[in-house]
Amino acid sequence: MSVTENVEVTGHLMDSGILSRVLDDIRQYGGDWVIKHIDVGHEASDTSRATITVTAEDDDALQRLLMRLQTRGVNQTDPGEATLAEADMDGVFPDGFYSTTNLATRVRIAGRWYDVENPEMDCGLVVDGERVYTLPMSDVRVGMQVVIGASGIRVTAPDVEKSGDSFGFMESDVSSEKPQAVLVRQVADGMRDAKAAGKKVLWVGGPGVVHTGAAPAMVAMVNAGFVDVLFAGNALATHDIESSLYGTSLGVDLSMGHGVEHGHEHHIRALNTIRKEGSIRAAVESGVLTGGIMHALVKHEKRFVLVGSVRDDGPLPDVHTDVIEGQRAMRAELTDVGFCLMVATMLHSVATGNILPASIPLVCVDINPATVTKLADRGSSQAKGIVTDVGLFLEQLAIELVPDYRRA
Amino acid sequence: MSVTENVEVTGHLMDSGILSRVLDDIRQYGGDWVIKHIDVGHEASDTSRATITVTAEDDDALQRLLMRLQTRGVNQTDPGEATLAEADMDGVFPDGFYSTTNLATRVRIAGRWYDVENPEMDCGLVVDGERVYTLPMSDVRVGMQVVIGASGIRVTAPDVEKSGDSFGFMESDVSSEKPQAVLVRQVADGMRDAKAAGKKVLWVGGPGVVHTGAAPAMVAMVNAGFVDVLFAGNALATHDIESSLYGTSLGVDLSMGHGVEHGHEHHIRALNTIRKEGSIRAAVESGVLTGGIMHALVKHEKRFVLVGSVRDDGPLPDVHTDVIEGQRAMRAELTDVGFCLMVATMLHSVATGNILPASIPLVCVDINPATVTKLADRGSSQAKGIVTDVGLFLEQLAIELVPDYRRA
Amino acid sequence: MSVTENVEVTGHLMDSGILSRVLDDIRQYGGDWVIKHIDVGHEASDTSRATITVTAEDDDALQRLLMRLQTRGVNQTDPGEATLAEADMDGVFPDGFYSTTNLATRVRIAGRWYDVENPEMDCGLVVDGERVYTLPMSDVRVGMQVVIGASGIRVTAPDVEKSGDSFGFMESDVSSEKPQAVLVRQVADGMRDAKAAGKKVLWVGGPGVVHTGAAPAMVAMVNAGFVDVLFAGNALATHDIESSLYGTSLGVDLSMGHGVEHGHEHHIRALNTIRKEGSIRAAVESGVLTGGIMHALVKHEKRFVLVGSVRDDGPLPDVHTDVIEGQRAMRAELTDVGFCLMVATMLHSVATGNILPASIPLVCVDINPATVTKLADRGSSQAKGIVTDVGLFLEQLAIELVPDYRRA
Amino acid sequence: MSVTENVEVTGHLMDSGILSRVLDDIRQYGGDWVIKHIDVGHEASDTSRATITVTAEDDDALQRLLMRLQTRGVNQTDPGEATLAEADMDGVFPDGFYSTTNLATRVRIAGRWYDVENPEMDCGLVVDGERVYTLPMSDVRVGMQVVIGASGIRVTAPDVEKSGDSFGFMESDVSSEKPQAVLVRQVADGMRDAKAAGKKVLWVGGPGVVHTGAAPAMVAMVNAGFVDVLFAGNALATHDIESSLYGTSLGVDLSMGHGVEHGHEHHIRALNTIRKEGSIRAAVESGVLTGGIMHALVKHEKRFVLVGSVRDDGPLPDVHTDVIEGQRAMRAELTDVGFCLMVATMLHSVATGNILPASIPLVCVDINPATVTKLADRGSSQAKGIVTDVGLFLEQLAIELVPDYRRA
Repeated sequence: MSVTENVEVTGHLMDSGILSRVLDDIRQYGGDWVIKHIDVGHEASDTSRATITVTAEDDDALQRLLMRLQTRGVNQTDPGEATLAEADMDGVFPDGFYSTTNLATRVRIAGRWYDVENPEMDCGLVVDGERVYTLPMSDVRVGMQVVIGASGIRVTAPDVEKSGDSFGFMESDVSSEKPQAVLVRQVADGMRDAKAAGKKVLWVGGPGVVHTGAAPAMVAMVNAGFVDVLFAGNALATHDIESSLYGTSLGVDLSMGHGVEHGHEHHIRALNTIRKEGSIRAAVESGVLTGGIMHALVKHEKRFVLVGSVRDDGPLPDVHTDVIEGQRAMRAELTDVGFCLMVATMLHSVATGNILPASIPLVCVDINPATVTKLADRGSSQAKGIVTDVGLFLEQLAIELVPDYRRA
Repeated sequence: MSVTENVEVTGHLMDSGILSRVLDDIRQYGGDWVIKHIDVGHEASDTSRATITVTAEDDDALQRLLMRLQTRGVNQTDPGEATLAEADMDGVFPDGFYSTTNLATRVRIAGRWYDVENPEMDCGLVVDGERVYTLPMSDVRVGMQVVIGASGIRVTAPDVEKSGDSFGFMESDVSSEKPQAVLVRQVADGMRDAKAAGKKVLWVGGPGVVHTGAAPAMVAMVNAGFVDVLFAGNALATHDIESSLYGTSLGVDLSMGHGVEHGHEHHIRALNTIRKEGSIRAAVESGVLTGGIMHALVKHEKRFVLVGSVRDDGPLPDVHTDVIEGQRAMRAELTDVGFCLMVATMLHSVATGNILPASIPLVCVDINPATVTKLADRGSSQAKGIVTDVGLFLEQLAIELVPDYRRA
Repeated sequence: MSVTENVEVTGHLMDSGILSRVLDDIRQYGGDWVIKHIDVGHEASDTSRATITVTAEDDDALQRLLMRLQTRGVNQTDPGEATLAEADMDGVFPDGFYSTTNLATRVRIAGRWYDVENPEMDCGLVVDGERVYTLPMSDVRVGMQVVIGASGIRVTAPDVEKSGDSFGFMESDVSSEKPQAVLVRQVADGMRDAKAAGKKVLWVGGPGVVHTGAAPAMVAMVNAGFVDVLFAGNALATHDIESSLYGTSLGVDLSMGHGVEHGHEHHIRALNTIRKEGSIRAAVESGVLTGGIMHALVKHEKRFVLVGSVRDDGPLPDVHTDVIEGQRAMRAELTDVGFCLMVATMLHSVATGNILPASIPLVCVDINPATVTKLADRGSSQAKGIVTDVGLFLEQLAIELVPDYRRA
Repeated sequence: MSVTENVEVTGHLMDSGILSRVLDDIRQYGGDWVIKHIDVGHEASDTSRATITVTAEDDDALQRLLMRLQTRGVNQTDPGEATLAEADMDGVFPDGFYSTTNLATRVRIAGRWYDVENPEMDCGLVVDGERVYTLPMSDVRVGMQVVIGASGIRVTAPDVEKSGDSFGFMESDVSSEKPQAVLVRQVADGMRDAKAAGKKVLWVGGPGVVHTGAAPAMVAMVNAGFVDVLFAGNALATHDIESSLYGTSLGVDLSMGHGVEHGHEHHIRALNTIRKEGSIRAAVESGVLTGGIMHALVKHEKRFVLVGSVRDDGPLPDVHTDVIEGQRAMRAELTDVGFCLMVATMLHSVATGNILPASIPLVCVDINPATVTKLADRGSSQAKGIVTDVGLFLEQLAIELVPDYRRA
């Protein structure tokens, strides 16, 4: 026997294509729909509002579909009250738990709406007195109160005002054929706006930053205050340090452009050197490490979180070898982030996209289109992609952001 | 003041191009060379032998260069004796430690040659009584005896007999334009040869195995005994399990080919379900998990090592969240591996390439040429690359290996 | 002073996302809009109808915008009458000519609607007595009557019934991560349907068909009647013939999988041999050419059009060296084509997409995602893309289509 | 019965890897070898010399193998005399014709050595009195004297002095991870050197030059005298002109970075406009075309050759629609070219590589690694590849080459 629920969605439904995606979702989850009512924005600047009756074959399927629709900003017309269940195992949610989006979310309990503190996708919602917050599965503890089903929950999708948007480049697609100079300027503006608003700029970087010779540009941007937090792996930091200690990075002699195919032992020696010092900071303070990106971050008291991976050598003493601990350390740095730039890393970009609220502007730069596509596919719908050469892009960005870069 | 050393190299120097790479290395490490003597193999099947005097600006540079040349199978003419130093910090090698290759290696101590037990690249060499073994940096403990410099060490590069090699496909390059049916047969032969020799077949896989619909083919090969060990991450196992539980894999309805763009909540629910059971094996035993790759591995008592990454949701209870622990678990499974197939994963392929002796045949299959190139660049010189569609490749491989596949 | 026009559009507006694209177009052409009326399909199977008032700054801009909107299937509410102008130069349209879409199109002249004979994009519309047909720019002759502006024209977009569509795979995106076996079957079904309906199957192929070892599979499909017409360049035919004459194809020894890096002189000799015979058919008849794809096409009296490019050696005597003549020869073969498969060629796929009516199902198979994306970007909106290995794909397709393939 | 011949090769045999490739060739052509003698350069700067006896199964196979080896700079020890045969059909070489390389070549006739005027690969050698020149197959005419077999021919491979080479970047591989700023400078130096030597700089470009917003940079370089000849297709010129006339290029609004998905009718109107004027030069002179790359070339009396392809709309009146005529027009512009830069086009890059002597430095820039790889695979062994973003690369190159670029 089928069950139904009325849902509603508001926004630029017509021109954003959101309605088409909502109806797609319903079908792909095996449901059906009737549009009960639609108020079309007549003029380009109006918002629209639609009420849709969705049908699913049983309550379980319906709950899942409703949770799914919330990732599009579609809420139940009559949201009702949140249902709670107690976790009875550490690290496991109760059955039927509400699986979160990264959109702004509110939960109604006993007639009152609570804002979810830290929107993050693929988590559960934990209610603790007056607080409601997202929690990853691995952090669940016995006795926590967890939201079940989609009742009592309301999400708000960011309203993508398309044409007037100052940050509206690359709206619908990922392309390597775009006027790149304009994109550089737009990223620079995004960073300046974040800083002007008192927010932090988060960078997520891969070793390509060093290999493409962009470390000096990035150092200039650290010095100029445009890098508040860096998320990376063992590789970026090691290659940066190797480059400072030996002038090479995994076999590339950076001043000459000659390729040293495998310079592994430089790499492994750089790791050993920093491990001997105890930490990157210690190596800076002892005078062993005197240049590069990591040095600049330490000097300017900026934050960095390095999280390891299974292919790591060493690793550096600062690297979180436990990836779940690493995720926690990354989450702890997200407060007040107002702009995020991801450069040349698929692994850490996807990891950051997983924990970043959808409200934070996000630009992903990579020569590999797959990185950008993957990010959007995983649900970071706010991601803007730029397929370009990382080295030249960061060089241009430094010229935009740092007045005396390349003049000194 | 410059210092010199005589080195020698034996093999198919002319036709393998090895000599050219050796001389390149010398220059790129800032050294110089004189060819003292060369015995050319006159006929195609003869081996050649060259003696070269290499010069470097100081002893430090010379030691590094000598270590570098050993990755090519070049040894000192007069190897001398190994020098040892004691580690005085946990997790840190003594200065000037010998950085290993993944080639067969011997060490001379007190006039006697010892075989290194487990060749692995980017490690140190630890001497413990009669044993000499490679050790990764993070496992060094105070008091261990570690080899310093390149004296007393002799490596043997596998002799690549080019044309007559039964496994000689894809010699010099990575290409998507190759007669694929031949390549499929060659991989099948490699696996059969390993099994016939009483060796294990190691698979390294990414989630693409499931997304491309190749799970049934892989299950057939597990059942037929061609998968002894699987190295993977959280993603392959989760998508495989999600597919068994819900018939979807990250949004792909596998029987219809319709794309479900983001099916995240299926994914997250599959994780929660297995976490509740306690382990993949427990889920098989309790009847919760009844199909798919992981199920087949458990049923046939095959081994798997899952190592986590920073982008993981969940993860599954079987996943090593500490990547250094994960590497140790992978190393422990390498004994008796006689063939390695890597499919659709850059991260775990590079990780496995790092720890695999060069003597084990290694084939890497990916639709992305960069994965294959990266692997070879990192030093897995024995790697053969096949750029093709993973789903169709595994389908063909199952047809080759499993007589009644697709007939049942 | 701004000018306005009422337009209307009918179809699955909500779930196809078409409305959002229409409104995007209006903005990007500098216009504005008011939705006057919208009839939403309440149930999933209903069609919707919208009436929109569009505004542009002057009549020129308005005409362009209206022509643009017709590529989306949007027509003027009051279509009026077509305006004609006479061409006064060979090879040049009159100013303001109507630029065609590849959709089914009708033109109203003197109160009567005429069907356009051969929808093709980026052409003009020529009226000749009772006939209205598309004509490429280079074929215009002085005195022809050409339609000016968008009045009196009505286009019909194919109604993409999404979920129920038997040919609905890969709806919105291009991906290498799809269950490939399903896709193979769907292509096979598309071909069988076309043949069952008495239509022709058109193949467009690049040399990768031969390099990947798929020539035997394609020969089997020619023999079985699933290749009625082939569009290709000099390269596919030459490599196929080279392979028959010498057993190599640009350096790949097909039976062994060994790469012959450059086998140019085989290539150039194959060209010389066929040129000496006078044509491919003559070489078949004289017994010089006894196998391969081109041989099979000749034997079965199938059609092929080879069009040259600037990188060609030779070329074969059958190759059209004048590309405009080549386009004409391709157009002449489109009659009764009911299915089109494009394999491993960007150049000829885009060329064919340019002249193919949108009503003909079109599947593009390439290991390079860019080919598929490019095709869709150029306006072949009906194109379905499959990113996979061409060799394995054709092998599977032959197994599907030819019962005794691989059994003989 | 097998036949043998002695061949010799001189150069940096050891460190260039050339010997290994020569021996590979022998095997891949089914031959065998004995190294009779080898003089190794003892020091890094010495050249080596090897004499090799090659064996093949019959004279035909031997002649082919000898021709093949000449592409590596390997000549017969006793070159003998060239054998000539008369062409007896237009457009067809006599059987057994010598197939050329793009290396410097000499031919011995009646005891005297003649320099081949215009080395080009995959051609025949025509002897006409005192002249010997390469001729493409399609230009052969009855009665011409054509060289048969490999006797009497001597080729000289450019001596690749590896480490000391000022233009030695990217020696052995194609990579996107290189310090890009160094590469930009090296290309700039290559152009300056050519100009200083009184030579011409040849550009080969695709439409990506315009799409990535690099047209202003290229215009600056035309104005500054660093573009003497441009080879391109219809697309680059049309998009450049479209951009000047309408401010768009295939749907990209260049000043804003907003994507206009398909702006086809702008494109088709730009074509019509220039066709009406009769030629690009006429459009410049009449004041219709006032900016962009083509305008700059006309203004500065620079040369351009546009050759059509089967996917062209229009085309522009300046486009050679016959590709063989187009090739002839390209060949006619090669005199005095001293440097060649290929940007963002696979088709025209391969076409140019086919006709360019190996002695001309050649750099290929593309975001797609396949373009660069293809070029080298086709025999343009001198090609250096840079995988990067074309827009940012040309921007940087203009900054390097044009002192007041971006200051005005």
